[in-house]
Amino acid sequence: MDWRRKDLLEIRELSREEILLVLDTAESFKEVSKRDIKKVPTLRGKTIITLFFEPSTRTRTSFEIAAKRLSADTINISATTSSVVKGETLKDTALNLESMQPDVIVIRHSLAGAPHILSKILNSSVINAGDGSHEHPTQALLDLFTIREKKGKIENLKVVIVGDIAHSRVARSNIFCLKKFGNEVVCCGPPSMIPPYLDTLGVRVEYKLESALKDADVIMALRIQKERGGVSFIPSLKEYATFYGLKKEHISLAKDDVIIMHPGPMNRGVEITDEVADGPYSVILDQVENGVAVRMAILYLLLGREQ
Amino acid sequence: MDWRRKDLLEIRELSREEILLVLDTAESFKEVSKRDIKKVPTLRGKTIITLFFEPSTRTRTSFEIAAKRLSADTINISATTSSVVKGETLKDTALNLESMQPDVIVIRHSLAGAPHILSKILNSSVINAGDGSHEHPTQALLDLFTIREKKGKIENLKVVIVGDIAHSRVARSNIFCLKKFGNEVVCCGPPSMIPPYLDTLGVRVEYKLESALKDADVIMALRIQKERGGVSFIPSLKEYATFYGLKKEHISLAKDDVIIMHPGPMNRGVEITDEVADGPYSVILDQVENGVAVRMAILYLLLGREQ
Amino acid sequence: MDWRRKDLLEIRELSREEILLVLDTAESFKEVSKRDIKKVPTLRGKTIITLFFEPSTRTRTSFEIAAKRLSADTINISATTSSVVKGETLKDTALNLESMQPDVIVIRHSLAGAPHILSKILNSSVINAGDGSHEHPTQALLDLFTIREKKGKIENLKVVIVGDIAHSRVARSNIFCLKKFGNEVVCCGPPSMIPPYLDTLGVRVEYKLESALKDADVIMALRIQKERGGVSFIPSLKEYATFYGLKKEHISLAKDDVIIMHPGPMNRGVEITDEVADGPYSVILDQVENGVAVRMAILYLLLGREQ
Repeated sequence: MDWRRKDLLEIRELSREEILLVLDTAESFKEVSKRDIKKVPTLRGKTIITLFFEPSTRTRTSFEIAAKRLSADTINISATTSSVVKGETLKDTALNLESMQPDVIVIRHSLAGAPHILSKILNSSVINAGDGSHEHPTQALLDLFTIREKKGKIENLKVVIVGDIAHSRVARSNIFCLKKFGNEVVCCGPPSMIPPYLDTLGVRVEYKLESALKDADVIMALRIQKERGGVSFIPSLKEYATFYGLKKEHISLAKDDVIIMHPGPMNRGVEITDEVADGPYSVILDQVENGVAVRMAILYLLLGREQ
Repeated sequence: MDWRRKDLLEIRELSREEILLVLDTAESFKEVSKRDIKKVPTLRGKTIITLFFEPSTRTRTSFEIAAKRLSADTINISATTSSVVKGETLKDTALNLESMQPDVIVIRHSLAGAPHILSKILNSSVINAGDGSHEHPTQALLDLFTIREKKGKIENLKVVIVGDIAHSRVARSNIFCLKKFGNEVVCCGPPSMIPPYLDTLGVRVEYKLESALKDADVIMALRIQKERGGVSFIPSLKEYATFYGLKKEHISLAKDDVIIMHPGPMNRGVEITDEVADGPYSVILDQVENGVAVRMAILYLLLGREQ
Repeated sequence: MDWRRKDLLEIRELSREEILLVLDTAESFKEVSKRDIKKVPTLRGKTIITLFFEPSTRTRTSFEIAAKRLSADTINISATTSSVVKGETLKDTALNLESMQPDVIVIRHSLAGAPHILSKILNSSVINAGDGSHEHPTQALLDLFTIREKKGKIENLKVVIVGDIAHSRVARSNIFCLKKFGNEVVCCGPPSMIPPYLDTLGVRVEYKLESALKDADVIMALRIQKERGGVSFIPSLKEYATFYGLKKEHISLAKDDVIIMHPGPMNRGVEITDEVADGPYSVILDQVENGVAVRMAILYLLLGREQ
């Protein structure tokens, strides 16, 4: 199949075929980063702008490396140095950037739906690198890529997502993605972090970690977003760690070949202990590595599509 | 004619021939940004430093994209992350950067004349990307390019500049530029924003917007620079908007083929309404697009000159 | 000889042969920056990350220019925009970056030993661009390169280092470097800025500037690090300038062909007067120029080593 979309805005709207096309394309790009000369000329002469209104190392760096390994030119704009301090609207910032004829604008914004607004007004491709508590589609794609790599399949798995489901765009994108492939998804966290709509997505809720983890194929720990008020939903980090922090003794409740995932950055000792984060079941650094390959694939597909 | 200058410091010192050479060169570069591979090898192996002591998205990005499309290497330095916090003088910062053998230093600084100081002590080419309330020459050049593109000529036009003339480097550079080609320039704004020297530049002043706009070929709205204390010269933004904000009903006072310009970023609802900014007479996004072509031309001319 | 080290962490561990290899390699790279096309394809397809937890113009820019002139891709990460604000540990930040398969991570950190920690856990090459008050090896190498260039030798010289020896990584790296080649090193400063261990390094201490400078071949003034509390060790900047600031009359105490060095950024009028900084004996800007060549050499040696 061919890729037809101009933008990557959310997992929810993607078909299984589109998701598989991204994964297969990423597979072929993963090898590039292992070469001695880590660069292919595919996107030479293309201009890719990262427009980040929230701080980020990993995601911005991952996109920038992906773009450079495809030989594209990259321009980084972060909110603190941008015209945003001059009170320009997001729409005007976007239209101005578009007038400089970039090929792709990668946007992270605290407002859910911001990438969708850009998508409608821009001819450039728009990639959602995280919008509020809504979606973070490349994270879900790299997570699925990692699951396929480690488990050999992406169907009929039991995936347990632990943490602040209500405010996590990573959780939402993963739920949409995993349910498209018929996986069992269980969400687990304190009641204040469980949104009311989960049953409509076919997701089961467990408030007790030990019950949730039973026979899990995949465990995803979410980050407590201290910098975004995440602690206001729980009595204390210590209490959260006690009841929902992933510890070594939890592993034995899951399947023998369980994998442990975390989107990073980790709060060690809160949502995950060192033993689990650095242990044999952890695929956390594989996620980061695969992120570059998946983002190369997305850039390639968006820019190489039939126009 | 050949370009002979090492630096681009101000419009005031340029001849008509030099200005036309920039415009003609920009014409040929505009096409590069519309190609599938937006890149020419012209400045491969050249190093271009952007040294910004004031925040900017548009101008820094425009220079960076221009440089990259010419295959130059770019280095961005912004005041907040630079040695400036360590109390180094501007002269020492510049001499240190020069020792790393860059070809061009693009500087924005709140001090009028800062680029001229650098020009005298550096062998590298210096481009003024805005110095205090003094000049912003590439803005005037891209504005003139846009006028030529839209009106087919750059002479004998009536150009009305509306806003804070006294504190605007954009206004000053445009006045110098437009007067060189024998245009009628009318400045309009509240008395607190009109500098005393305008008549010496051959510029007429009107305090009433409706009178100023009569038969205008070009209307340039300036930005109220809220972040630089611009509001302290007016009773309120609301009052400014009432008397000097460009509204739809003003268009009919001008010529039928009037064009509306704004250097951005816009304060919508203050100096310009949405209807005008987004209406059929607006060429605001053309200005941004042409900015890349004009900056490619400047970089090309400065580095390709007879030495 | 061949370069065998994965990392450049400190001068202390380098052999004389290794140091000479860096200097000779830098010699051949210095010419690249003087070409019309300042670029060689040596490191095409390599990814170099600068990870700076302290502000810097000169060092970060020098590394970035060095990398680009070798055709490597560069990614800049500064602490203020990074995940550090999200509370991630240095180790996790490093492991995450490593998962994106960079070839080199250049790190500056306020914690002495931070690069050594990274070195142990990463396969990527690590370059110490300054760690707390510990070492700044590329500074010492570019200083030695400059001394060799100006004096024709790097042995049997009298080198006087003036200033806050106790808190200066530049001083420490230079002491280790200069002593390896059998130079006489004299440290001079107020007692509060002289560490107790200098005699164990074979360094002589003088508290009186005039005595210290007698027959010096090289004088290095250190920077008073105002932004890092440097003034808390002295009664006042004025008093420091009176007793330890380098002035024109000091030059005649040294050898006729003395050279004056400063790692920058300078506090003019404090540790050095304008007359000395800009005078005929000053090689301060040569140091900056040579910094690019030395960093090109380091990147080349680390990435081209036998693996």
